[in-house]
Amino acid sequence: MGSLFLSVSTAFFLIPLIFQTCLMVSGEVKSYDWNVEYMYWKPDCVESLVMGINGKFPGPTITAKAGDTILVKLTNKLHTEGVVIHWHGIRQLETPWADGTAAISQCAINPGDTFLYNFTVDKAGTYFYHGHYGMQRSAGLYGSLNVDVADGAKEPFAYDDEITILLSDWWHQSVHKQEVGLSSKPFRWIGEPQSILINGKGQFGCSLGGEFINGSTKCSQDIDEQCQPEVFSIQPKKKYRVRIASTTSLASLNFSIGNHTMTLVEADGNYVQQVEVDSLNIYSGDTYSVLIETNQYPSTNYWISAYQIARKPPHPLRPGLTILNYKPKAPNPVLDAPSSSPLPTPPLWNDFTGGKSFASKILALQSDQLTIPKPPTSFDRRIVLLNTQNNNSGYIRWSINNVSLVLPTTPLLGSLKYGLLNGLDSEKPAEDFPANYDVMKPPVNPNSNSGGSVYKFDYGITIDVIIQNANVLEPHTSEVHPWHLHGHDFWVLGYGEGRFSSESSNLNLKNPPLRNNVVLFPHGWTAIRFVTDNPGVWPFHCHIEPHLHMGMGVVFAEAVNRIKTVPSGVLECGLTAKTILADSITSPDPLGAPSPSPSPGGVSSLGPMGAVNLIFIYLFVLCWLYVC
Amino acid sequence: MGSLFLSVSTAFFLIPLIFQTCLMVSGEVKSYDWNVEYMYWKPDCVESLVMGINGKFPGPTITAKAGDTILVKLTNKLHTEGVVIHWHGIRQLETPWADGTAAISQCAINPGDTFLYNFTVDKAGTYFYHGHYGMQRSAGLYGSLNVDVADGAKEPFAYDDEITILLSDWWHQSVHKQEVGLSSKPFRWIGEPQSILINGKGQFGCSLGGEFINGSTKCSQDIDEQCQPEVFSIQPKKKYRVRIASTTSLASLNFSIGNHTMTLVEADGNYVQQVEVDSLNIYSGDTYSVLIETNQYPSTNYWISAYQIARKPPHPLRPGLTILNYKPKAPNPVLDAPSSSPLPTPPLWNDFTGGKSFASKILALQSDQLTIPKPPTSFDRRIVLLNTQNNNSGYIRWSINNVSLVLPTTPLLGSLKYGLLNGLDSEKPAEDFPANYDVMKPPVNPNSNSGGSVYKFDYGITIDVIIQNANVLEPHTSEVHPWHLHGHDFWVLGYGEGRFSSESSNLNLKNPPLRNNVVLFPHGWTAIRFVTDNPGVWPFHCHIEPHLHMGMGVVFAEAVNRIKTVPSGVLECGLTAKTILADSITSPDPLGAPSPSPSPGGVSSLGPMGAVNLIFIYLFVLCWLYVC
Repeated sequence: MGSLFLSVSTAFFLIPLIFQTCLMVSGEVKSYDWNVEYMYWKPDCVESLVMGINGKFPGPTITAKAGDTILVKLTNKLHTEGVVIHWHGIRQLETPWADGTAAISQCAINPGDTFLYNFTVDKAGTYFYHGHYGMQRSAGLYGSLNVDVADGAKEPFAYDDEITILLSDWWHQSVHKQEVGLSSKPFRWIGEPQSILINGKGQFGCSLGGEFINGSTKCSQDIDEQCQPEVFSIQPKKKYRVRIASTTSLASLNFSIGNHTMTLVEADGNYVQQVEVDSLNIYSGDTYSVLIETNQYPSTNYWISAYQIARKPPHPLRPGLTILNYKPKAPNPVLDAPSSSPLPTPPLWNDFTGGKSFASKILALQSDQLTIPKPPTSFDRRIVLLNTQNNNSGYIRWSINNVSLVLPTTPLLGSLKYGLLNGLDSEKPAEDFPANYDVMKPPVNPNSNSGGSVYKFDYGITIDVIIQNANVLEPHTSEVHPWHLHGHDFWVLGYGEGRFSSESSNLNLKNPPLRNNVVLFPHGWTAIRFVTDNPGVWPFHCHIEPHLHMGMGVVFAEAVNRIKTVPSGVLECGLTAKTILADSITSPDPLGAPSPSPSPGGVSSLGPMGAVNLIFIYLFVLCWLYVC
Repeated sequence: MGSLFLSVSTAFFLIPLIFQTCLMVSGEVKSYDWNVEYMYWKPDCVESLVMGINGKFPGPTITAKAGDTILVKLTNKLHTEGVVIHWHGIRQLETPWADGTAAISQCAINPGDTFLYNFTVDKAGTYFYHGHYGMQRSAGLYGSLNVDVADGAKEPFAYDDEITILLSDWWHQSVHKQEVGLSSKPFRWIGEPQSILINGKGQFGCSLGGEFINGSTKCSQDIDEQCQPEVFSIQPKKKYRVRIASTTSLASLNFSIGNHTMTLVEADGNYVQQVEVDSLNIYSGDTYSVLIETNQYPSTNYWISAYQIARKPPHPLRPGLTILNYKPKAPNPVLDAPSSSPLPTPPLWNDFTGGKSFASKILALQSDQLTIPKPPTSFDRRIVLLNTQNNNSGYIRWSINNVSLVLPTTPLLGSLKYGLLNGLDSEKPAEDFPANYDVMKPPVNPNSNSGGSVYKFDYGITIDVIIQNANVLEPHTSEVHPWHLHGHDFWVLGYGEGRFSSESSNLNLKNPPLRNNVVLFPHGWTAIRFVTDNPGVWPFHCHIEPHLHMGMGVVFAEAVNRIKTVPSGVLECGLTAKTILADSITSPDPLGAPSPSPSPGGVSSLGPMGAVNLIFIYLFVLCWLYVC
């Protein structure tokens, strides 16, 4: 009787397990074993602590093909801090628990613990990954993630080789001090970054980079391998794809390659109409691919530059700089630097007209060969999100429709899936803001509320979101905010000035680009559209790290009822710590893929089957006792 | 049938619950609601981040009476770090899960979570509390804990009033940088502290304190309320008890009160033979009570000083200084400072002869009125612990019997109680060291192993531990290590030079003092004895924070089979996360006392009964389905 019972229960588990395993092996499986740890490092020639992976900063570049499965076994080697990693731009179709957002999609991984990220990169494009807990992205936890087209698939452009550029910004003050300052009364702003890094390397104190690269003694810092510019050496007379991603904490950047016109071909993992530009504006969270022809005079090196825009930059300027070097010329940037190629001219930081002009050039590719998704012609629900800066009893916060985001302890995915009301705010967040609110002026009442702003969406509907900017606390001032949505691409239907009006604001339904990150200009609005076809719990937030820390985000809970199962190890904290086992009796472990190895301290070492069987054995014994 | 079944199970839980509740209310219940958070603070007039409690540094002083129950509802307000608090010197009789040691007695409390420390202070004495995760003690997470005798009970001395002094040391480098440096290759030592703090206040840059206290402009730092010395104002012609505890990270201190002879009456919560001293040597983890007569000329203020000893101090000296002020003289230390009272003379830092002489003066009180526990005359098991400094492929570590302590992810209390072999090292640690090891010389082979050194003890046996010092990596050098045992007082049977020998080393069985912390002198040994009468998992370690971080400790697992129950919220991490629920079916929740409030994110909000009932309901449904 007992063995029959156990066999039935085992079969009950095994069938979907085998089924799911079969489903997951369409591409290649790329496995990584990563240790996250703090280390002494000199990102800009000044020694600091950085959060590195496997002893390197930035973390390793992942290169995969569309359809591949990525397995990252992440071990937290920090001493007292939890950690997670978000895979920026990857939609996590059917794996919402692998999105890597602490307190939303999973519990932070405890020090010493190992967690397995297991997801499919379904679509070719330029992506990156980064920490998504506290301000660990600012601490240096990031790296590049490039997805090529699947074997046999074609892209709408050709190139001979590629270059990957990851842009970031760097502060000398620790992120712990930054976090505490932002949450303090009186408020302490983090200020502008000390350096802009290109692939994790910058040169503090070399205000125009040139002194450093020319080997001058003006540089106040010692040259060190860790901060020496990464020189991009290319072959002449070729076509290169340059993949550019910005994981800055704060800085908006203007990127250019001296003497080389760039042809924009991809934005955020989606093909765009090819357009030639001399420079491009890249906001935190944006990714682009451009094509360049290496057709310039090969004995000269050319500047690659990233200047701060959209906020008043520090004086002297601190651009990120490196060089494009033509082979076989020696690439040593110190001994053999550019002489004839002039330093790029810094753009006007407040040239928002130019910024808007650039943004309007990004349009979906029109193609006969490729299927480019078109937006539905109408929406089912429109949500307007007013962005305000607030002063809550001396604490400076950002709020969306008067709520400043404070994440709960229990991951929202767990609280929503298991209906744990204690883990959720009972207030339903507002879907618009008062008609008499003047977005051109400081808030009349600078106070706002705090909480978890969760918008719940049914499956398969079309959502329009209008992100509405406003004036900050100081008069005549409004800031740039790049907004990023997890779990989705969205169509960018348009940008506009002042307050959005459904009557007079023009939306582009013809060829809007698909993106996962979009800029909101000062005193303006941005309209996006997406379809709720990906069950999960997805943050939508300003990608400026201190702004998110100060509450600038909301959460979209999408068809959570359709998320059948969550793997072991995802939600064992807070209110869900105990709920999981009870639930795992009724729903089998879903991954069906390699699980974290039973290393000491691995959260999943017991294994879901072990725990479930334990209960079943106990249950069986009790039943047996009862019936006998 | 079902309701009968549930009623039986409910009764099964309720009986011991009521019984335990009755047992716990013999004293008063003292409740505290604490938030732990980083804050900007100036402990020594230089701004740093400190880990404070309820916006203060140091944390609040707990004052209770023997027999009282302490309830501390601790909320972790850190952004990404876990936290625990250890109650130093409290034996945690029957509450080993409340000892506050991360990875040993409990899971670290996650950011946003609340944990309830619920324990009895069974014995009067001078104690303190501090963080016990990473190097959070060094970050400033500490405070005083004074336990008076129960109403009606008498102490073997009288006094009119008391003063509480908590000594600590302070670095300007963040603990995160300290931790990383200690774990780096090349190794980076933290160096000597920038300041010695008295009740959390020091004055960096005022090398002899006098400049500051005399209001001179020589002080390089601004005077600030946060770093202004706490002046102890006393009434003349009275007897004061001065409670002194040292929670230093590193510094051994020589403490004195100018012109006032001190009568030692208590060490680590145990009465000692009264002995008069002009100064006392206090090592990290030590606590003392002294009596002073306020019989000096009342118009003069007198120095209270704490000088570094046992390690070569920095130059110029940086003692902790404040003043003893006689009322009604104005206590303002800047405007009205001591003039006639000379600054105390710094002791010789390497006067180990004096240190040993002081240590030998501390003997158990002989009393007709009080029961002073005597040690058993023989031991059942003797463990010799060799302390070595090692160089493991460039990583500098401390090891005990050639094993450097690395704690697992799953708390040892959980792994041992539930027999989770993956959470434990299979190696049985050595109980002695090779006969040919020369403790006077650097190690011949500087390598050692890493792991969790767990010594398992049966209940009710007498254990002798010989802590054996040795030469460090550098020739002719050996360091001081104060060793602290959790869960116990132990008798200090003696100190000696060189290698301990069971034949020739004299042990004091007549009047050895009971302590929980004891110094190990350079190139010497210290012998202690205790009885395994307190089931639990108790670390025994060097109380120097960086030394523990570098592996200098072992763990004593004592009669773990006798620990029947562990409250909800203690072990919901690592391998035990899932084991708990399975176990809670067979063992009821033990506290029977107030449980953490169901605040958002509280780990215990679901409640053990709720979870258990869920299983029982499920079980009942299955049984019903089966039998019908």
